[in-house]
Amino acid sequence: MPTAPSRIPAGLRADARHNRDRIVQVARGLFAERGLDVPMAAVARRAGVGIATLYRRFPTKESLVTEVFADQFQACTSVVDEALADPDPWRGFCAAIEKVCAMQAADRGFTAAFIAAYPDALDVERERARAIDGFTELTRRAQAAGGLRPDFVPGDLALLVMANGGIVAKSAEAARAASRRLVGYLLAAFSAEHARPLPPPAPLDLDPMLGLSPR
Amino acid sequence: MPTAPSRIPAGLRADARHNRDRIVQVARGLFAERGLDVPMAAVARRAGVGIATLYRRFPTKESLVTEVFADQFQACTSVVDEALADPDPWRGFCAAIEKVCAMQAADRGFTAAFIAAYPDALDVERERARAIDGFTELTRRAQAAGGLRPDFVPGDLALLVMANGGIVAKSAEAARAASRRLVGYLLAAFSAEHARPLPPPAPLDLDPMLGLSPR
Repeated sequence: MPTAPSRIPAGLRADARHNRDRIVQVARGLFAERGLDVPMAAVARRAGVGIATLYRRFPTKESLVTEVFADQFQACTSVVDEALADPDPWRGFCAAIEKVCAMQAADRGFTAAFIAAYPDALDVERERARAIDGFTELTRRAQAAGGLRPDFVPGDLALLVMANGGIVAKSAEAARAASRRLVGYLLAAFSAEHARPLPPPAPLDLDPMLGLSPR
Repeated sequence: MPTAPSRIPAGLRADARHNRDRIVQVARGLFAERGLDVPMAAVARRAGVGIATLYRRFPTKESLVTEVFADQFQACTSVVDEALADPDPWRGFCAAIEKVCAMQAADRGFTAAFIAAYPDALDVERERARAIDGFTELTRRAQAAGGLRPDFVPGDLALLVMANGGIVAKSAEAARAASRRLVGYLLAAFSAEHARPLPPPAPLDLDPMLGLSPR
């Protein structure tokens, strides 16, 4: 389970909190660009903080990488919560799909590299199950509201994420634009209006959604 | 340019022709399953021909691999010709998309492995340019006939093939079913009926269509 929130002392001053957020954001970008081997000094330099400040907040590389991942993982699971909170389930569904695919386009292999390097750093089981339950409920509501075609199955999210992965993997520069256009086409296809018959669902489960295999 | 037809003597007897087709088909399946290192003896065994017969037809492994690729490449380019011959351009367009994606699902990395192993075996430039011109013309006609939405651009085929590649790469067993369902969704999205606005096209070219990078 993500441990990010518990690591930030409740009384952390605003500028310290700002520093922490900036370090995590900069580290996130560097890991995505150059892999997990980026030196701590490079993170400090780009974040505009001293190396001592960086090590005070994150005593080890692992603690920084884990924090970055926890942040991202929380953002991913909160996408479903936000969508469920939308009074228009179909609008919530579309927004969730757009956000998940945009995150995947920005990920650039970070999640896979993190899990390979630190397989036991976080217990993500519970959060993953919660996200899958949430998306299944979101699907049900969007179908009940008439926006989402009735033959959409939750496993089609895995289809979409794998398809988006094919685009993200193949074209570094064009990845975000290509991903947005693919998602645009697919949301048009998911709409209940004038839906045409589809081939049957593929036997896929939802695990690719979070870039994780079952453990 | 594919040289397959010129290698089959005009007067080749029907059973010899049948043997040749069977060998190529069996080799195709074995290369896809197990890579290009499959021994010639394994090809002969599965094709039900003697090893001497196999070597009489294909004196080297390279000659067999090249023939398999030429066959497949010709099948791929003829997809566009068949689609252009359909009196209903939108139906032709849909059939071409379905066939290209099914071929990609069946390819299992064979094309990439072939090009890596024998980069100079075939001059595919001319055929590739012809296929791209043909698909561009098919797009124009399907739009003029009102079936294909007007904001579809030929580069969206690259998008689709990359997306399909993400599915094909990730799930060996479910690949064909997943690919068919993705294509079903995307053809629904490509339809001109009730098309909704899309994000702008990504700067992709058509080269992934044939699994080739420009040379």
